[in-house]
Amino acid sequence: MKLYKKGNDQSYTLGVFPTIELLKHRPQNVVRVVVHSSIHQNRGYPMIQELCQQYHIPIDVHDRTIEKLSPKNNCYAIGVFKIYTSPLQQAHHVVLEHPMDMGNMGTIMRTMLGFGYKNLAIIKPAVDIFDPKVIRASMGAIFHLNVAYYESFEEYYHAFSDHEFYPFMLKGAKNIHQVHSHQCHSLVFGNESHGLDDTYLNYGQSVFIPHHEEIDSLNLSMALGIALFHFSKAEFEGKEVLREDV
Amino acid sequence: MKLYKKGNDQSYTLGVFPTIELLKHRPQNVVRVVVHSSIHQNRGYPMIQELCQQYHIPIDVHDRTIEKLSPKNNCYAIGVFKIYTSPLQQAHHVVLEHPMDMGNMGTIMRTMLGFGYKNLAIIKPAVDIFDPKVIRASMGAIFHLNVAYYESFEEYYHAFSDHEFYPFMLKGAKNIHQVHSHQCHSLVFGNESHGLDDTYLNYGQSVFIPHHEEIDSLNLSMALGIALFHFSKAEFEGKEVLREDV
Repeated sequence: MKLYKKGNDQSYTLGVFPTIELLKHRPQNVVRVVVHSSIHQNRGYPMIQELCQQYHIPIDVHDRTIEKLSPKNNCYAIGVFKIYTSPLQQAHHVVLEHPMDMGNMGTIMRTMLGFGYKNLAIIKPAVDIFDPKVIRASMGAIFHLNVAYYESFEEYYHAFSDHEFYPFMLKGAKNIHQVHSHQCHSLVFGNESHGLDDTYLNYGQSVFIPHHEEIDSLNLSMALGIALFHFSKAEFEGKEVLREDV
Repeated sequence: MKLYKKGNDQSYTLGVFPTIELLKHRPQNVVRVVVHSSIHQNRGYPMIQELCQQYHIPIDVHDRTIEKLSPKNNCYAIGVFKIYTSPLQQAHHVVLEHPMDMGNMGTIMRTMLGFGYKNLAIIKPAVDIFDPKVIRASMGAIFHLNVAYYESFEEYYHAFSDHEFYPFMLKGAKNIHQVHSHQCHSLVFGNESHGLDDTYLNYGQSVFIPHHEEIDSLNLSMALGIALFHFSKAEFEGKEVLREDV
């Protein structure tokens, strides 16, 4: 096992929880699971064993592999999987142009999953979503999502031209509080440092999130979380409790 | 100049932009500004010079100090200031119980400023807000805010008992979409890893942010950003443009 590099045909999860998420949601892609000899103390291990047995996935005990791939962290399990593609479904989408920050990408995936957005289009060049740092930051949310890369926004736009498009821009024409969508939509966000350029004013309904001038802009994952909260309101506003079990 | 340690009576900004924010908003606390000999290329430097002249603050050119305090970064200016206290005003508050993550704290301050929340109560134990890492992550937003530490939530609660209290909890009794506040309020959030405990169900109106069960919870800064967006809606929903100059 080698440290992951962009372009590899395999990647891996670091940690028990994301490994369980991988086994539950992408079992067909898992090559093997590597565990540390001290994993028996971990309460997630029975679940890993059960899932590996169900899908005929080998479990190897190999401390040195774990220590090599996760030298600094207290890691008990690694799930090795083949890189896969997952075409987008006809549903609401998030579109990110040139995202570059691995931690942000993980947070974004997790927040998308929370608000029921399971399809993510990424316009290249962009961060590699299968980098173990992204997988870790997503806490396994990546395995619930369909993620597809596009060479340009034009390419994505033509593939889903029946969607409503909402580019989020400081220059956006409409206040998000006044925007209500009732059909399949694509929420489009620019890069962490410079946002979307003016050409995006020509696609669909550009939107701004109002805030005071004392800050230049909200950060990307914050803007995205607020947008998802607003656009998914109809689904969630009648809920009486968050979960039965809390 | 020594590296900042908790308990010091002085701290510092790292970088031109946060140093300008410090000089604009807390000039009375600034001891001196240290700049790198190559700062002349930086377009923020005239502003630093003007502000230092206006408030009679010395500027020292001293490359070694800069390199010592910011070894990895391309830093041109450091603003040294005396640690200050800033009592909370009668206005909307954010209350954080035991926040521990410096990066989160900076993001939270910046988001608060964006939505017009300028008063932050922190229940100890907690991160040191004057750590240069927090100041940097806040991009100088910290100098716009009043921040006060409290030994316990009880102490804070008694000081502002006329506020409406909204503790954010997974077990919260009311869906945020159904909550509307029309007076001075305090939005209360727990620690990054374990949230608020059940005793907070007894204070004011506990609130949850609805999301799917596929994630355990939203992260702290995301939940806070969404809460501020929702609670400040009345102020922002009529805005026609974000800013005149974008």
